Amino acid sequence: MELYELPLAEVSEKIRTREISPVEVVNSALVRLKEVEPAITAFVTVTEEIARAQAAKAESEIGAGDYRGPLHGIPLGVKDLYDTAGVPTTSSSKQRADNVPSTDSASVARLHEAGMVLIGKTETHEFAYGATTPTTGNPWDPDRVPGGSSGGSGAAVGAGVVHVALGSDTGGSIRIPAGVCGTVGLKPTYGRASRAGVASLSWSLDHVGPLTRNVTDAGIAMAAMSGYDRRDPATVDLPAPDFLTGIDAGVAGKKIGIPTNYFTYHVEPETLDVAKRTALLLEGLGAQLVEVEIPLAEYLLPTEWGLLSAEASAYHMGAMRESPELFTDEVRTLIEAGEAQLATDYINALRLRTRIQEAWRDMYDGIDVLLAPTVPGVAALREDPHFRWDDGVVEGATSAYSRMCAPANVTGLPALQVPAAFSAAGLPIGVQIIGKPFCEAEILQVGYALEQATEVVGRIAPVPIAGAR
Amino acid sequence: MELYELPLAEVSEKIRTREISPVEVVNSALVRLKEVEPAITAFVTVTEEIARAQAAKAESEIGAGDYRGPLHGIPLGVKDLYDTAGVPTTSSSKQRADNVPSTDSASVARLHEAGMVLIGKTETHEFAYGATTPTTGNPWDPDRVPGGSSGGSGAAVGAGVVHVALGSDTGGSIRIPAGVCGTVGLKPTYGRASRAGVASLSWSLDHVGPLTRNVTDAGIAMAAMSGYDRRDPATVDLPAPDFLTGIDAGVAGKKIGIPTNYFTYHVEPETLDVAKRTALLLEGLGAQLVEVEIPLAEYLLPTEWGLLSAEASAYHMGAMRESPELFTDEVRTLIEAGEAQLATDYINALRLRTRIQEAWRDMYDGIDVLLAPTVPGVAALREDPHFRWDDGVVEGATSAYSRMCAPANVTGLPALQVPAAFSAAGLPIGVQIIGKPFCEAEILQVGYALEQATEVVGRIAPVPIAGAR
Repeated sequence: MELYELPLAEVSEKIRTREISPVEVVNSALVRLKEVEPAITAFVTVTEEIARAQAAKAESEIGAGDYRGPLHGIPLGVKDLYDTAGVPTTSSSKQRADNVPSTDSASVARLHEAGMVLIGKTETHEFAYGATTPTTGNPWDPDRVPGGSSGGSGAAVGAGVVHVALGSDTGGSIRIPAGVCGTVGLKPTYGRASRAGVASLSWSLDHVGPLTRNVTDAGIAMAAMSGYDRRDPATVDLPAPDFLTGIDAGVAGKKIGIPTNYFTYHVEPETLDVAKRTALLLEGLGAQLVEVEIPLAEYLLPTEWGLLSAEASAYHMGAMRESPELFTDEVRTLIEAGEAQLATDYINALRLRTRIQEAWRDMYDGIDVLLAPTVPGVAALREDPHFRWDDGVVEGATSAYSRMCAPANVTGLPALQVPAAFSAAGLPIGVQIIGKPFCEAEILQVGYALEQATEVVGRIAPVPIAGAR
Repeated sequence: MELYELPLAEVSEKIRTREISPVEVVNSALVRLKEVEPAITAFVTVTEEIARAQAAKAESEIGAGDYRGPLHGIPLGVKDLYDTAGVPTTSSSKQRADNVPSTDSASVARLHEAGMVLIGKTETHEFAYGATTPTTGNPWDPDRVPGGSSGGSGAAVGAGVVHVALGSDTGGSIRIPAGVCGTVGLKPTYGRASRAGVASLSWSLDHVGPLTRNVTDAGIAMAAMSGYDRRDPATVDLPAPDFLTGIDAGVAGKKIGIPTNYFTYHVEPETLDVAKRTALLLEGLGAQLVEVEIPLAEYLLPTEWGLLSAEASAYHMGAMRESPELFTDEVRTLIEAGEAQLATDYINALRLRTRIQEAWRDMYDGIDVLLAPTVPGVAALREDPHFRWDDGVVEGATSAYSRMCAPANVTGLPALQVPAAFSAAGLPIGVQIIGKPFCEAEILQVGYALEQATEVVGRIAPVPIAGAR
């Protein structure tokens, strides 16, 4: 068994006890990267030299007795939306082809502080404005999309290159690739972690978070990323979170909300079935299932897009003035649409969001967490990224994928994607667990129970070997 | 001496000891009201029957030993923007000529809980969208404006009709009328008190607060109005504030910021002189004066208006669709302008606000409070509400008045207007003390020191008697 195949906990333990060196771990990650990259193109930039240097530094630190914890010496992939000091940061756009930031984004700085080693920058749908990441292949079937916008991070974790990759989630962009690539993905509560140094799609909906191979690792990485940062005015000043204590406490007595609407419409039968079976599994573990109606459901998407389109256009205003031709047609068209939006429409979306948040708060009076499919179907084909529903509706993959994820962005609630099953065709199917504000520990607890009860979490995609080995 | 002339503390003490009854206090207020109202028209609606009934109720409560505190049995004026159960609430607009709310606004409910007696609803500039309140005369010279938008509240307190009147402040609408009517006015920190049940001008800039005859009374009323309210998502859940302990601690050692820009431009010489003398007075009391440059000063007004105009137009969208003709031309024109505003411009104003708040936070690292003129000049003539500056600029009164007040709305910082002097022509001139977030106690402390050191706070305007007595 290669080192890259081991779970993070085992690798960490071997590093801590100096049975292995971070240099060996990073070597193994780079070998795996070269093996799968021709098929999936998960990375914009591979930082091989930096990785080897950081691994050597980690080795000598640990050798000197300065072991920093379970992330020390562990390979990290970083979505190319995040600033990385001295490393090109393109947001997968020609707009930033020459952009080399001088400082790390807040999350990258914190994970380096925890000892992580940068393997490379992962592909994103251009400026995170879409959910298919056209550059990249799904590790379970490279002819299919890896989801997005953090598609490169989903592919890199799913293919076993890294244990942790960073994503950002404005309408599902962590959970969608995690869902269709078969990884865990955690979008924390709005305000939990700093977005400083991450290109914005939509300030009031953007979240940073990790994609990982299992639930515990998501808690470890998220805890390291969390905390107040003056440079991100949305961050809330809370004590350093402990997401691990009690993660194995089980779900006995927990009230799991099962939506009777919204998350049940235009869903592939296999996906719907997995959500149902997952609910019954939790019930079998002692949880109580509580049917809930999603309130103001018809306003969720108008609110998401009413906020997102205008905020994205405000962010890209300068680039649209100077070099609109450097955007892809797809993203430029979306930005142009947002430029025409009226302030009153945006403000009404803000008002709707407040109403939705209030209504969801009431819904949570009767439940602890909500369980729903993460996305309505498996990875779409790259050549034809659409869903065709029974009633004749043809829905673009970005639209379909974000439809089920956006509620946690509009409400700001923490949401955890966990692999739950594989389709008959061998593609991953996940569920998301949506919690109360700043109750990440609780959704991780539910996710951990699921992980223990199924055998699907942590599998590495058997990407066709491209002869590089 | 009539009862209405006594300071609140004396009246309260007499009520508490049952030397006098709330019924007598209210009688005196109503007599004064009828005496001055022909000259100043401070009230849209006088609630004489309700006032007498509530006074009788207060009398019997106190007689039964249920004395609720210093506001029990004290006359209250309420800006007609605030919902009052069963009492017309027009926002001084034909749009709401027939509007009779079924419940009290949060502030009114809290003040009734504290035992206050509703004397009537005070005039506002239509929907608070202006700072001259054309319906109403200044009690110190009825040919002059009472400021606005809480002009009726300023006139009612200035003329001695009530001890406390409610105002709302989006660009100065508490401090402006308090300033030109010679009363105290307190705009609290954004989030301190609930705006539920108050017609909105601009959600992200609106604040509720009291106009009172002296600083202590502002602290008493504001404390009663403060607190979290689920119906106002901006409210912050903080313990019940104590604004009175230490109010008389003086200003020794306190660092008072003295602006070298923005608040010094286009100001009448008498007003500028009063601000300077007030600073020296505080220095004489042991405070330390610290010159500060207001950061990002050129962006303050674009930010204020970029937020306000769009939010106001979003609020009035329905009325503009159904009955635009019921607005005055002045306000309808302002709403139409906001309707044309783009979402990206609004969002850029939001971004600017964040930058301004950050820059002000840095400025406050070196000071405890900021001292500035409240408005750049005395009450303007109702027939010609303009300021003519030395350089030939002619500035409308609404624009001039809000220019100096808006910074505390954009930043959300608490600001206290205190009368500081009278002009040669006998018109009130005030200063404002702007504090750190949720440090109302500190600005009240500085205001109290000023009040004790001058002899101008608490004077009742000698409004010409109209023969009604």
